[in-house]
Amino acid sequence: MGKVVAVGLGPGDPSQMTAAADRALRTAEVIAGYSGYVDQIRGRYPGKEILETPMRGETERCRLALEAARSGKSVAVICSGDAGIYGMAGLLIEMAGDTEIEVVPGVTAAISGAALLGAPLGHDFAVISLSDLLTPWEKIEKRLELAAEADLCIALYNPGSRKRKDYLQRACRILLRHAAPETVCGITRNIGRDGESAAVMSLRELEQEPADMFMTVFVGNSQTRRIGDRMVTPRGYHLGGQEQ
Amino acid sequence: MGKVVAVGLGPGDPSQMTAAADRALRTAEVIAGYSGYVDQIRGRYPGKEILETPMRGETERCRLALEAARSGKSVAVICSGDAGIYGMAGLLIEMAGDTEIEVVPGVTAAISGAALLGAPLGHDFAVISLSDLLTPWEKIEKRLELAAEADLCIALYNPGSRKRKDYLQRACRILLRHAAPETVCGITRNIGRDGESAAVMSLRELEQEPADMFMTVFVGNSQTRRIGDRMVTPRGYHLGGQEQ
Repeated sequence: MGKVVAVGLGPGDPSQMTAAADRALRTAEVIAGYSGYVDQIRGRYPGKEILETPMRGETERCRLALEAARSGKSVAVICSGDAGIYGMAGLLIEMAGDTEIEVVPGVTAAISGAALLGAPLGHDFAVISLSDLLTPWEKIEKRLELAAEADLCIALYNPGSRKRKDYLQRACRILLRHAAPETVCGITRNIGRDGESAAVMSLRELEQEPADMFMTVFVGNSQTRRIGDRMVTPRGYHLGGQEQ
Repeated sequence: MGKVVAVGLGPGDPSQMTAAADRALRTAEVIAGYSGYVDQIRGRYPGKEILETPMRGETERCRLALEAARSGKSVAVICSGDAGIYGMAGLLIEMAGDTEIEVVPGVTAAISGAALLGAPLGHDFAVISLSDLLTPWEKIEKRLELAAEADLCIALYNPGSRKRKDYLQRACRILLRHAAPETVCGITRNIGRDGESAAVMSLRELEQEPADMFMTVFVGNSQTRRIGDRMVTPRGYHLGGQEQ
């Protein structure tokens, strides 16, 4: 019986993949994934059997991958960013039965986007998705409010789409119940892809930004500073003369 | 004038480094870092000028790295995991003045440890350090309580040390104000190093675990499941017939 490896590709550029992820793709006989991600890597790993499924075809993708593994093939299921964070690893394990699932981690957008901005996640942080496709919006609102009350830095995934035009604005209004309007925030777009960009702004300015599905958004904590065009959250609070 | 690249090494094993991190170390003339991390990579990048500083020598390490860059050298400052998450990138940018700082991201312990356990961070999560060296304990307590109230999955960094033997126990007691004793939790040890291990248990059992500085701890949300020896947080909540 073959096995399935859930592989995190990182943000997009091959240089941001780990050596383990590259090896997993080189050694796999079958590569399964959302067609957008398959297009990213197809040319680099020739001679593979490819199982493409459309966006939101997650259950079918897992079923096909597990079926291929049960027929004796080694299968890699590719995920953008990390394989576990909003990725396919969990669903694969849930559906696996006796089939072995290995998870090869990757650089998720919270980390790759942070590197573009400087160090916005230098202290405790939360990662919250604004997509209410599988999560009630009330739950998302509650998490946003409590994360802001906790003074956590926040990375926001899926801040908007054509159907969810005002979600980022709604999120900012909730955060503003606890965070100051001047809170340092950052936006990254198209991380590791053509058109990559990063911008630093205040939470009040972020509230006015049109959101789209190519964005990852960062909200600082009360200590986060803007230094030139970078966003930096210090690793600690000044506790009176201790080594910083 | 040279520049400084803050490089995330990943959890330890070279296979978990990105190609960009490897290239940054190959092209640097000077490698600066905590001596424990320098020992990890010294043999793989021969012929470099090495600037070693002890644990907690962060400010001095940055000063030396920036000084070398100002003298025209290309410098890599190495960090375990990611360069920004509790890493050196922020302090470097704060101290840099006109010197260019580039951040090369890496796989942080929340991601590499999660991959060992399965997919404990498959939905919204918080990363919280239990070290009170630079953060008042009351702030840490508040973050733990609010993260549990928000039903976020949590990755705990620095859960204990010789001086902080009971911090993990104290953290568990705070989480238990909102999370059920049966909440699925996981411990990873020595990720990407000799003696690597992972174990799944309940929050009540986690409360009894002796903590040390080689551990990264994962606390599930209300939906997290134990599947065999794996820990999985589903990507969403069942909202009545939508594609999972």
